[in-house]
Amino acid sequence: MENFDFHVTTDIRFGKDRLAELPEALNQFGKKVLIVYGGGSIKKIGLYDKVMEQLKANGNEVFELAGVEPNPRVETVRRGAEICRKEKIDVLLAVGGGSTIDCAKVVAAAAKFDGDAWDLVLQRRGYQGGALPLVTILTLAATGSEMNSGAVISNLETHQKLGTGSKAMLPKVSFLDPQNTFSVNKYQTAAGSADIMSHLIENYFKRTEGADIQDSVSEGLMRSVIKNCPIALKDPTDYDARANLMWASTLALNGLTGNGKPGAWSCHPMEHELSAFYDITHGVGLAILTPRWMEYSLNDETVDKFAHFAWNVWNVEEKVPMLAARIGIQKLYDYFKACGIPMTLPEVGIDEEKFEEMAKQAVAHSTIKTDAFVPLDEAAVKEIYTACLTESNFE
Amino acid sequence: MENFDFHVTTDIRFGKDRLAELPEALNQFGKKVLIVYGGGSIKKIGLYDKVMEQLKANGNEVFELAGVEPNPRVETVRRGAEICRKEKIDVLLAVGGGSTIDCAKVVAAAAKFDGDAWDLVLQRRGYQGGALPLVTILTLAATGSEMNSGAVISNLETHQKLGTGSKAMLPKVSFLDPQNTFSVNKYQTAAGSADIMSHLIENYFKRTEGADIQDSVSEGLMRSVIKNCPIALKDPTDYDARANLMWASTLALNGLTGNGKPGAWSCHPMEHELSAFYDITHGVGLAILTPRWMEYSLNDETVDKFAHFAWNVWNVEEKVPMLAARIGIQKLYDYFKACGIPMTLPEVGIDEEKFEEMAKQAVAHSTIKTDAFVPLDEAAVKEIYTACLTESNFE
Repeated sequence: MENFDFHVTTDIRFGKDRLAELPEALNQFGKKVLIVYGGGSIKKIGLYDKVMEQLKANGNEVFELAGVEPNPRVETVRRGAEICRKEKIDVLLAVGGGSTIDCAKVVAAAAKFDGDAWDLVLQRRGYQGGALPLVTILTLAATGSEMNSGAVISNLETHQKLGTGSKAMLPKVSFLDPQNTFSVNKYQTAAGSADIMSHLIENYFKRTEGADIQDSVSEGLMRSVIKNCPIALKDPTDYDARANLMWASTLALNGLTGNGKPGAWSCHPMEHELSAFYDITHGVGLAILTPRWMEYSLNDETVDKFAHFAWNVWNVEEKVPMLAARIGIQKLYDYFKACGIPMTLPEVGIDEEKFEEMAKQAVAHSTIKTDAFVPLDEAAVKEIYTACLTESNFE
Repeated sequence: MENFDFHVTTDIRFGKDRLAELPEALNQFGKKVLIVYGGGSIKKIGLYDKVMEQLKANGNEVFELAGVEPNPRVETVRRGAEICRKEKIDVLLAVGGGSTIDCAKVVAAAAKFDGDAWDLVLQRRGYQGGALPLVTILTLAATGSEMNSGAVISNLETHQKLGTGSKAMLPKVSFLDPQNTFSVNKYQTAAGSADIMSHLIENYFKRTEGADIQDSVSEGLMRSVIKNCPIALKDPTDYDARANLMWASTLALNGLTGNGKPGAWSCHPMEHELSAFYDITHGVGLAILTPRWMEYSLNDETVDKFAHFAWNVWNVEEKVPMLAARIGIQKLYDYFKACGIPMTLPEVGIDEEKFEEMAKQAVAHSTIKTDAFVPLDEAAVKEIYTACLTESNFE
């Protein structure tokens, strides 16, 4: 296990019907609120009205940044930062999923940044400036953005989708009410769960050895997602299933499973290019890539880790490590498929045309060539993309 | 899953050789430091000198509260609070295990409390006042006190050992260097690991259903402890084994496995009476009691939970739940024994003389009669104590 810090100060309010606490959460920071949200699903489920009712009774002055995209764009960040500066906003309130929260984080920082928002994003994890305080109300179990300091912003002009973030962007308070995810449709529920699984898998498959705590916590969270996603797909209003998925999303990416295990993630850099070029659903891209990446990365040196993944996450009974490993990969693939996720790239409208270009970018925008579990150069990325063109069988 | 808060702001500095960060951690609060420690083991391992070197170079004015007992006593708390008031201490620095940190927490609060320290303890979790800031350097993987707001203080005059605590007592910064536990002897290593296991088991066996995340994280942490404690017993300087035990101790009791699962703990109230009356090692008392408590609590209504404990923590292959449950209990008992823990009360100098009185107190000082996984009245507690008089076989 490597040295690490763990200092995650977000005040989590988990559970049913806690919006009456919203005024107290906001009033610590001021009365001028910028509410940030996406395409209007929060209006459909009545959450927007409930929030506004609280803000009105609390005497807040409310401004709006609406229409945040599923892969939030830098133009929207610029628009939000402009409102913050002009209206002297005290606190941001993001109501939505990871994209909305990511956008709000970078708006909060860009409002205090002397320069263009994209230049801030380009600082990646190096931004040292301040940010306005952010409170979030989560409506989708997926990215974990509600309790971490990272954000992903897209620039469609330059075909870039980049991770950025800083301690100042960590949400101050996050309201996690599983009921707010009851209306999430099957496709997005499955994609969100795939995103959670991917975060856990990315941290699990790193080269650092001896991090049993991080890995056994990951295994536990994976088992919970594997159990609860199908329940939520079958009965979208099953409270405990939604609660377990929501809390899994938060814990998968708040440092618990990754801190102490340095090294690059493998699938996210490859997926970010798919989303940047084709604007597909992030979790779907990850579900498609992950089993093929696993097959590419499975070899005599890495087999132990894959076998443990099979035994501890999937209860595979096969004792021979290489055979167990392949069964584990197959189980992951079958599981995603059973959740209704399209498991080839053509099904989401992607062919081989841009594989070369995307592979170049994936390597250029990350350190997968040197720091991934199994180093991935451009040829490797292209090989993995190519394996996603057709159905797979790993056993 | 029930509603819960999770807001644990302790700044964790985990890993090797990070004492150079100590001045920066303390300087946020001031220069007058009260260093709190136990019986001198920190001098033996050279940690005291290293800390003093940092404090001297940092220009701190240092006062000392030495000799904190393994079950810290209210007299020591009073002594510490008096120093804080008289010397206008800015920040406490606890260097030691859970007892030292617990003592420092209550000293920090008592220094700001207008009344006797024992009256503060008697407020239990109801203390609303302030506390001086606390920084800790952990030297024993056991209680989790380094990242929570609780403390246990003993009053030998009244035969009371009571939990207390408040948000104000949460450590601000905790340094967790696994190397500081290399010199912990086999007995204390095993007892500390039993304490960790007990915290996980107490939270696991609660009546709340549908808390898969909390339970699967617990299972993962238990598996890690079960794997790493024997390694540390065999090779006390195995860094990863010590690191995994240390991080397990912290996560077992920082809210991750318990929040969202209300209800009373079962074994701790029973053990607190053993320690209060006989001053035995807390973790040893827990190890002795837990398997017997499990046998008492195993019935047709509770068998599912015990079977999952057997399957998911101990990899028991038996499929019949009641049989699997008994094998799981046996495995826990055998594991503690293999770690060198004396597994009967007579071995630690306790006979049946005070069972009646201790059972009364255990019920009086807790809510186990109504809120435990299986309700425990005085007769039940006495029955469990009695089962600890001789070796057990659960299968």
